[in-house]
Amino acid sequence: MQKTLQEIAQIVNGRVLGDSGLTISGVTNITLAGPGDITFAVEPHIAAAETCAAGAVIIPEDTEHFSKTAILVKEPREAFTKLLEVFTPPLEIQRGISEKAHIGKDVKIGKNVAVMPFAVIDDYAEIGDNVILYPHTYIGQHASIGADTLIYSSVTVREFCKIGERVILHSSTVIGGDGFGFITKDGVHGKVPQVGNVVIADDVEVGAHVGIDRATMGSTVIGRGTKIDNLVHIGHNCEIGANNLIVAQTGIAGSTIVGHNVTFGGQTGVVGHIHIGSNTVLAARSGPIGDIPENVFYAGFPARPHQEWLRAEVAAKKLPEMRKQIKALEKRLQKLEDKK
Amino acid sequence: MQKTLQEIAQIVNGRVLGDSGLTISGVTNITLAGPGDITFAVEPHIAAAETCAAGAVIIPEDTEHFSKTAILVKEPREAFTKLLEVFTPPLEIQRGISEKAHIGKDVKIGKNVAVMPFAVIDDYAEIGDNVILYPHTYIGQHASIGADTLIYSSVTVREFCKIGERVILHSSTVIGGDGFGFITKDGVHGKVPQVGNVVIADDVEVGAHVGIDRATMGSTVIGRGTKIDNLVHIGHNCEIGANNLIVAQTGIAGSTIVGHNVTFGGQTGVVGHIHIGSNTVLAARSGPIGDIPENVFYAGFPARPHQEWLRAEVAAKKLPEMRKQIKALEKRLQKLEDKK
Amino acid sequence: MQKTLQEIAQIVNGRVLGDSGLTISGVTNITLAGPGDITFAVEPHIAAAETCAAGAVIIPEDTEHFSKTAILVKEPREAFTKLLEVFTPPLEIQRGISEKAHIGKDVKIGKNVAVMPFAVIDDYAEIGDNVILYPHTYIGQHASIGADTLIYSSVTVREFCKIGERVILHSSTVIGGDGFGFITKDGVHGKVPQVGNVVIADDVEVGAHVGIDRATMGSTVIGRGTKIDNLVHIGHNCEIGANNLIVAQTGIAGSTIVGHNVTFGGQTGVVGHIHIGSNTVLAARSGPIGDIPENVFYAGFPARPHQEWLRAEVAAKKLPEMRKQIKALEKRLQKLEDKK
Repeated sequence: MQKTLQEIAQIVNGRVLGDSGLTISGVTNITLAGPGDITFAVEPHIAAAETCAAGAVIIPEDTEHFSKTAILVKEPREAFTKLLEVFTPPLEIQRGISEKAHIGKDVKIGKNVAVMPFAVIDDYAEIGDNVILYPHTYIGQHASIGADTLIYSSVTVREFCKIGERVILHSSTVIGGDGFGFITKDGVHGKVPQVGNVVIADDVEVGAHVGIDRATMGSTVIGRGTKIDNLVHIGHNCEIGANNLIVAQTGIAGSTIVGHNVTFGGQTGVVGHIHIGSNTVLAARSGPIGDIPENVFYAGFPARPHQEWLRAEVAAKKLPEMRKQIKALEKRLQKLEDKK
Repeated sequence: MQKTLQEIAQIVNGRVLGDSGLTISGVTNITLAGPGDITFAVEPHIAAAETCAAGAVIIPEDTEHFSKTAILVKEPREAFTKLLEVFTPPLEIQRGISEKAHIGKDVKIGKNVAVMPFAVIDDYAEIGDNVILYPHTYIGQHASIGADTLIYSSVTVREFCKIGERVILHSSTVIGGDGFGFITKDGVHGKVPQVGNVVIADDVEVGAHVGIDRATMGSTVIGRGTKIDNLVHIGHNCEIGANNLIVAQTGIAGSTIVGHNVTFGGQTGVVGHIHIGSNTVLAARSGPIGDIPENVFYAGFPARPHQEWLRAEVAAKKLPEMRKQIKALEKRLQKLEDKK
Repeated sequence: MQKTLQEIAQIVNGRVLGDSGLTISGVTNITLAGPGDITFAVEPHIAAAETCAAGAVIIPEDTEHFSKTAILVKEPREAFTKLLEVFTPPLEIQRGISEKAHIGKDVKIGKNVAVMPFAVIDDYAEIGDNVILYPHTYIGQHASIGADTLIYSSVTVREFCKIGERVILHSSTVIGGDGFGFITKDGVHGKVPQVGNVVIADDVEVGAHVGIDRATMGSTVIGRGTKIDNLVHIGHNCEIGANNLIVAQTGIAGSTIVGHNVTFGGQTGVVGHIHIGSNTVLAARSGPIGDIPENVFYAGFPARPHQEWLRAEVAAKKLPEMRKQIKALEKRLQKLEDKK
């Protein structure tokens, strides 16, 4: 694809600085960009961008001096993301149901779907319009998949689970595996039937190798717009609110309830049966073991306010010094006592 | 399904308190239960259960006052679990070998199995009676699967591995991947062939995305009745005893030997080549780096007795205060010394 | 397979001590070995090996006394690994493209490949000579797989990713899932298109359930000879050098750059956008939050030099004692002050 700088300025609602007839054929980051590419820069990188090899740079509209060809916009990062979409040719996804897929009985399938070879849609499942099922996906009995949802290879959606619209499930993710529930009697663990399901709201994205367990009864719920990274575990009967960001390798044990716009740093571990308030940020590797209020920044294990954690970390570094100080005090005190 | 309270009381071996002709059509938890449902309550929730919306509540037989329709039993939780099973209609699993499955040469398959579309049973494998293989399962050459075992979608059981009876393997789990074994020479890591296998005993349940690596030689072993949660890693040549509970995201490095009835809290990390005694509990996120005795409760990293860990945690919180105390002592001591 | 000790000595370039006509039919570890087997021993286990049940033992060539039949070699472990390979009959892998596989359009496939049932090679992909694709693998559009590479069941290689020669990808691993990139505006997370790919160099091995995310732009890179264990997460735009060892459940956040011959202990967590120098060792569970130099041994979270971490751990254990010491000093000081 090729576009002039003028055409690009129209797409991103910006103003050209320099040669508006310049032809651009690629969109990439500042390190990789060459003379035919456009990239972007924001402070504190704007001055450095003047010497990059890119043909043009998208910069903030209030930039005062810039010696290179540029497009001035309000939000350079957003404009750049838009161009990435425009310049990336979509994959050729062949619509239709592959003859090599397996469709069970009494299945409902919407319009314009792509069901690829060796995908399985089990009995009584419902598939919305424009859904894409990659090879080796398994959609269980009575499960439903909302319109415009994209499910990559080897994903499992177990029976009775409900996936919203415009959801993305990455490869090998498992929705609706049994929760980890047992009753132990005389040292033997008897299985508690896990008869609930998982409900995933619209606009959710789930990374690769994520396990979201079905509820014992009722539903495990993932709220609208929440984004989940790779290798995350979400236990049975959790209720996760809207627009959360759950970074890789985080685990949330069963029955925990989370508000909206919460961020979980990578490798966070949350115990079961607690509440985490909205707009809260949990630092990477933190480990909440009790309720966490709204609007806070917590860190450490057990998780506590980030400032408190920082103070304890600083003090911990002083520990060897503190031991020396105590010994020195002891000596001086002994000397005083001996003089008596 | 519909049953009267009298019929239900007979199923759970209990006694009706109130209208024994009441019709029940659902079994669910106390929050979700409506007038047609039965739920359960144990102390300290029994008083609160009197005001719930459920049609009837299963309560302990020694409850003295209860103003609502109820069934009195010895073990309410167990009775409730039994009812969950009775009221949950089993999925319709069609028995037989799908024409779309692939069966290798010299395979032995028992009676009454369900081998779903796109399942692969490779050469020389043996499948016991009543086994269910979901779509996209792969059973390797010479592997064997015991009777009544249930294997969900996209599970891999590699060559020569042996799975017991009544085992459940959840989706995308991998049994018998190569152990992580290399000999490093001049900075280059040469692969050590992993020619052993994995042996899983009867009544084991394994969550989604679990990796249990095959032994370098001999067998990696999972003991009878052990239950493993999602995203757990078990290294080559581990020997895990009977009736363990291994909670999500735990990792156990190679050649570690674990006794019976051990509990691993979530995100525990165990080094290789150690012994963990029977009946021990490792708290969530603990990290044993040496042998752990029987019958203990350990926590922290490195793992130590829970009481010791607690004391250290309490002391750590006092650190900023201790620094202040040392400074104050220093001042007072200086004053005394100056007086001399 | 059966070989005399003399034949085995020739294979491993060693010298027989005792009956060189002894027939050996198995190679296994010292605990499992019986009279027909050969095993190996190095110090401090050589004396103990004299009483083992093995028919013969491979020992270092400079061993002074050994009362049992043996083969003396320079590197016993290496010799043993070689024998493991010789005595392990390779699996019967049928070459050719299964009629039950799905091959897209304009695909290039080399000689002597094995493409097993239900493998999918999507449009425009390239598969090198001698490649083995197990059942349920998915090779995306325009992806390429180098010669002699082995890909186990249910692996996904997404579009445009490039896999080198002699690579091993274990079951359910996902190469090229979307990076976790969003622009948040008014609390809603907008997806940043992930238009880059993953490039894996020659001789890399990747465990089960590993997620290596595709770059936002450009490539996520795994260097030659690097070995990755199970359940590892590698974020978008990471560049991992050659001959790294990345142990199970480690996570490396996006855009981090790692040198050569680095070891990551199990459950390590690395933040994004940092540099880790060559030849460095990160202890299990360590958590680097800033650049790490070359040639160092770091531990703890936040990661620091191992010696420093050790001192802090030792001091932390003394904390309850330090509190007592401070209290005692306080008392003695009070006594002195009162005397004035």
